[in-house]
Amino acid sequence: MVGLGDNKAYLQGIYMPVTLNTSASDFEDSFVAMLSAKREDSSDVNDTVAAIIRDVRDHGDATLCKLTSRFDRLDLTPDRLRFTPDEIEAEVAKVTPEDRAALTLAAERIRAYHARQMPEDASWTDPEGATLGWRWTAVSAAGLYVPGGSAAYPSSVLMNAIPARVAGVDRLVICVPTPDGVINPLVLLAAQLSGVSEIYRIGGAQAIAALAYGTETIAPVDKITGPGNAYVAAAKRQVFGRVGIDMIAGPSEVLVIADGDQNPDWIALDLLAQAEHDADAQSILITTDEGLGHAVAGAVDRILPTLPRAEIAGASWRDYGTIIIARDLDEAAALSNRIAPEHLELMVADADALAAKCTHAGAIFLGAYTPEAVGDYVSGPNHVLPTARSARFSSGLSVMDFLKRTTMARLTPGALAAIGPAAMRLAASEGLQAHGASVEGRLSVLNERGHE
Amino acid sequence: MVGLGDNKAYLQGIYMPVTLNTSASDFEDSFVAMLSAKREDSSDVNDTVAAIIRDVRDHGDATLCKLTSRFDRLDLTPDRLRFTPDEIEAEVAKVTPEDRAALTLAAERIRAYHARQMPEDASWTDPEGATLGWRWTAVSAAGLYVPGGSAAYPSSVLMNAIPARVAGVDRLVICVPTPDGVINPLVLLAAQLSGVSEIYRIGGAQAIAALAYGTETIAPVDKITGPGNAYVAAAKRQVFGRVGIDMIAGPSEVLVIADGDQNPDWIALDLLAQAEHDADAQSILITTDEGLGHAVAGAVDRILPTLPRAEIAGASWRDYGTIIIARDLDEAAALSNRIAPEHLELMVADADALAAKCTHAGAIFLGAYTPEAVGDYVSGPNHVLPTARSARFSSGLSVMDFLKRTTMARLTPGALAAIGPAAMRLAASEGLQAHGASVEGRLSVLNERGHE
Repeated sequence: MVGLGDNKAYLQGIYMPVTLNTSASDFEDSFVAMLSAKREDSSDVNDTVAAIIRDVRDHGDATLCKLTSRFDRLDLTPDRLRFTPDEIEAEVAKVTPEDRAALTLAAERIRAYHARQMPEDASWTDPEGATLGWRWTAVSAAGLYVPGGSAAYPSSVLMNAIPARVAGVDRLVICVPTPDGVINPLVLLAAQLSGVSEIYRIGGAQAIAALAYGTETIAPVDKITGPGNAYVAAAKRQVFGRVGIDMIAGPSEVLVIADGDQNPDWIALDLLAQAEHDADAQSILITTDEGLGHAVAGAVDRILPTLPRAEIAGASWRDYGTIIIARDLDEAAALSNRIAPEHLELMVADADALAAKCTHAGAIFLGAYTPEAVGDYVSGPNHVLPTARSARFSSGLSVMDFLKRTTMARLTPGALAAIGPAAMRLAASEGLQAHGASVEGRLSVLNERGHE
Repeated sequence: MVGLGDNKAYLQGIYMPVTLNTSASDFEDSFVAMLSAKREDSSDVNDTVAAIIRDVRDHGDATLCKLTSRFDRLDLTPDRLRFTPDEIEAEVAKVTPEDRAALTLAAERIRAYHARQMPEDASWTDPEGATLGWRWTAVSAAGLYVPGGSAAYPSSVLMNAIPARVAGVDRLVICVPTPDGVINPLVLLAAQLSGVSEIYRIGGAQAIAALAYGTETIAPVDKITGPGNAYVAAAKRQVFGRVGIDMIAGPSEVLVIADGDQNPDWIALDLLAQAEHDADAQSILITTDEGLGHAVAGAVDRILPTLPRAEIAGASWRDYGTIIIARDLDEAAALSNRIAPEHLELMVADADALAAKCTHAGAIFLGAYTPEAVGDYVSGPNHVLPTARSARFSSGLSVMDFLKRTTMARLTPGALAAIGPAAMRLAASEGLQAHGASVEGRLSVLNERGHE
């Protein structure tokens, strides 16, 4: 496992992932280079998006119809923006019983997991007589963006809409573009299973603008979530503040930590499942066993050409695929914490012990029988997770994203007498006299009453 | 309460707040105009800030020293960027015993409140054999920006730093500019009481850049919180993604809902306490009693000229102060929910009943003896709260802002056999073959074993 000399590309498969050995003298430089590699185009679409948002604010439905005709080759009138119940039923009827059963199972499991996330209100009275606490309430209306075409994932509808419904969001709106009028029936079924109230056949920055500002047909929402292309992401950034948004997701990534006793084919398939998402996706293996590293590289080479999405997966594995040979699992955990992966698979004998050392990760999959793909669909936890090292400071989508907390305080006259003077002194030190006077005015009336 | 004819400015005090009556025919238009009034300069500082961030990334400490000399008229060398323990002790020794006692009481109460916010980890095993749950971990390092000069509020240090320490953040860094070398000793004492580990005498966009990217002297952090001017706000927006940030706060605001039995002077002082923060702050009273509305307007006119910050408070009250006469408390609650105020005072006989109807608010203060000023300092809840109607979708600062949640899943072979096929079917429907194969590969090995 040590002393490999040339630490790069010594596991040279067809697709040649970067291979690093922690014992090599230049490991630190290579690892930092991998961490800071930019995996996204930063094409500047901000001006285009700003113009679209302005147009939607000024002209409402008319702009939505105009842009839908231009981008999706679909001519609509305002009364046709929204799917009717009959249209939804007609599409949903096309779903096979097997697909329906799978989607229903996924919805039930996702709902059960997220139901446990509902936080508790709190209220207590302290010795001074102050009753303190907080209260959680749901966002009133949420909008979910669903990409059209090949990226129209029904699983994403479940993962975004179900937490909102569990949180108690009243009005749940979907915008999904339907290029040439084509919609994926499973997307509509997922919306139905999740309790979505309104579905509009619009996409792009214009859909985000409509959700944020409203049009004649579409009432505005308070929070917008869901994935999208660069235009959608830029539009979400621009309307942030007017409405809440979820994270702006970058390319997806997986880190597998494996000891020597693992099946190399399973690991290879897990790495490739990540790679097939997107040419910018990243798959990393850290193993304590050099032989396993070789075997996984070989398995990837063998399996990759058989995949329908070999071109995408191959580009991802070639450009960003990485195998790291580590001295031991402690070192692997330390590297994992620097990577802060979106998905972390722990295929080791004692996965719980290793998980305790891996403090920064969006989701952890423990043991050899928990492939990430199960988490993408049916295990229950959310698949919307922090990318690009943001698991250092943020969490995956949850019920909390559709709730907000109001803090509550009620003071008795006695409590105000006990803690008010400290507030008066601090207000004075900050030069805020009316702050102090608002306490003093009350205390002086209480004092007079006390002396009556 | 009804039929006032001319609904504007009929409560004409010296400072003439906008006065609206919900019974007036043009109330809705006037209310919408008030809601959408822009209370902030949108001076474009983005390019300047981008250049500063680039400069800090390229030249590190040298840029920090250069800009501190330029903006704060303070010449530093890199080894002088950080306050030494001796320097902190010397400043802290200047604090009066009374101020120290008040700040200590505030710190203790804020700590006690936030300690209750720590969320629980969860783990359970479902009937299929999947062990699911989540785990909370702290951000490793957080940076707190503290404005210098007149806006250097020690209370803000407590409100930002204590939740971070309660969450378990290891490394807590403060950046505070010291114009002409002057520091508020109470800011350093607040940092000491909150367990801050490092304090740097730098400010502006350059401080945010240093926290996000690090320099030779300052190691980067994972999350940045705290208030600041337009440059600091723009810098936080620009480094977002690289690090986490808290909300970008707008001008502060208070809404008081009062019935006829309240002391008009107390209400006037509460409205003025908000107004004295900032000429862009907003103070609103909704009352069911026209006579009280008159009395409060009069009290404001009487008290305002006596305030040291009369100019600021007067500008805020004149430009944004609003008194609304409502038919009843239900109507008041409905208006409050449209305003979604940062601070909401309920000075009515049954404050709990009214609070239940007010679903969008950052913080609620119940009853006549809970002035907002107490909440700004010593009651315990955080005073960093959502402004500009964002209480519709976001919450005040809390321990949660310094934690992140990792979802956990572990499947047994039996659990994979039970739910894996549904994942395979959904993966197939989404055209992601490696996803399906990663499940199928495991299940086929399990099947072979089962038949051995």
